[in-house]
Amino acid sequence: MKAVVLLSGGLDSSTVLAIALEMGYDVHALSFDYGQRHSRELESAKKIARYFNVPHKIIKIDLRQIGGSALTDNIEVPERQVEDIEKEIPITYVPARNTILLSLALGYAEVIDADAIFYGANAIDYSGYPDCRPEYVEAFERVANLGTKRGVEGKPIKIIAPIIHMTKAEIIKKGMELGVPYELTWSCYRGEKKACGKCDSCLLRLKGFMEAGYEDPLDYETYPEFYIEYLKKKGKK
Amino acid sequence: MKAVVLLSGGLDSSTVLAIALEMGYDVHALSFDYGQRHSRELESAKKIARYFNVPHKIIKIDLRQIGGSALTDNIEVPERQVEDIEKEIPITYVPARNTILLSLALGYAEVIDADAIFYGANAIDYSGYPDCRPEYVEAFERVANLGTKRGVEGKPIKIIAPIIHMTKAEIIKKGMELGVPYELTWSCYRGEKKACGKCDSCLLRLKGFMEAGYEDPLDYETYPEFYIEYLKKKGKK
Repeated sequence: MKAVVLLSGGLDSSTVLAIALEMGYDVHALSFDYGQRHSRELESAKKIARYFNVPHKIIKIDLRQIGGSALTDNIEVPERQVEDIEKEIPITYVPARNTILLSLALGYAEVIDADAIFYGANAIDYSGYPDCRPEYVEAFERVANLGTKRGVEGKPIKIIAPIIHMTKAEIIKKGMELGVPYELTWSCYRGEKKACGKCDSCLLRLKGFMEAGYEDPLDYETYPEFYIEYLKKKGKK
Repeated sequence: MKAVVLLSGGLDSSTVLAIALEMGYDVHALSFDYGQRHSRELESAKKIARYFNVPHKIIKIDLRQIGGSALTDNIEVPERQVEDIEKEIPITYVPARNTILLSLALGYAEVIDADAIFYGANAIDYSGYPDCRPEYVEAFERVANLGTKRGVEGKPIKIIAPIIHMTKAEIIKKGMELGVPYELTWSCYRGEKKACGKCDSCLLRLKGFMEAGYEDPLDYETYPEFYIEYLKKKGKK
């Protein structure tokens, strides 16, 4: 069984890669150089693929040509409180990004004759992105099977979203069991030398580690209050 | 009402653009520079957009990064008889191409806040491509509405495929009524100075003009037997 694993280099997709390997798939990691401001993520993707010793393809697609988001445009990434994160679609939303990346993954899957595409969507701590919901994943699978030669020939391509119903804490617990080197992953939207500890993604990540009962091995510029409290309770500060 | 019209520069999409205008849409043409061998098509797209005086965006995405087709790879485009064309998925099939291009159109539609995407899929003379069937279009519309901010906010994006059930002859008749300048369009897969008159696309086009009772105003290197016969009957050769 062969699978394309969408690997952003973040915590979620790195865990998904480990899950695909555990499920016995011959994993082909796929990343995108899409003009993201946090290009540090791509470096993490390379490190993760190397760590797990799987082939890794990087496709270049400049989504800045489409425009419309803080992740690719030169506008400020907002700071929010962790409680506010799931209430609205964030400004960091890139129009149709996941549909575009899944489509490219679909093309690649067809070329290498893969049976599945692993997609690290998450409906729980999904940070307000519409394309992380199960019904979206099902709809895309239908497109995949109706719109490809493989599908027409009766060899379906599965879109597997193994962490879609997991909380961030559950994802981290699973990843720790599978030995995911989280110090190599990157989640921060800002992309400086250290993770900022302030953006939505850092906040969700640190909250996840806290709830999983682990410490995040990544270096942070600063920690939010709740995480400092957590470290204090653990007797670390 | 605003619409993104996928404009390849071919006969079908140029007709679709005219139909969208006739329906009263504020049309934004969108083309792709995707490493196609027949880049002449892109020149035609520019001419058509200029002719109809609509804004035209070209997105660059190198599908050769994915590989797997005669349209982007350096392999020979086959010659077939017109009767064989619809029997199998042709070697010119680019894996998931239309899904990729529709996804990019979806991102662009969201950015410009368009209500519809016009897609020149055709299920009758579809030359064996799986992503030209109505059920595929419906499935993609579902993805569009589940996977975008617009969709989530209750402002659906329609995927309109106005020529999907039309024969090539019907498309041409409609386009002639609407004044589509077919001499500016390009359908040939080979992309020399004149259309080859031998590839699948040329054969279907010439057959369409013949059945519609018109002459194709485009220049051809050579004509297939059936079209020579047709011109003879019309008393032109």
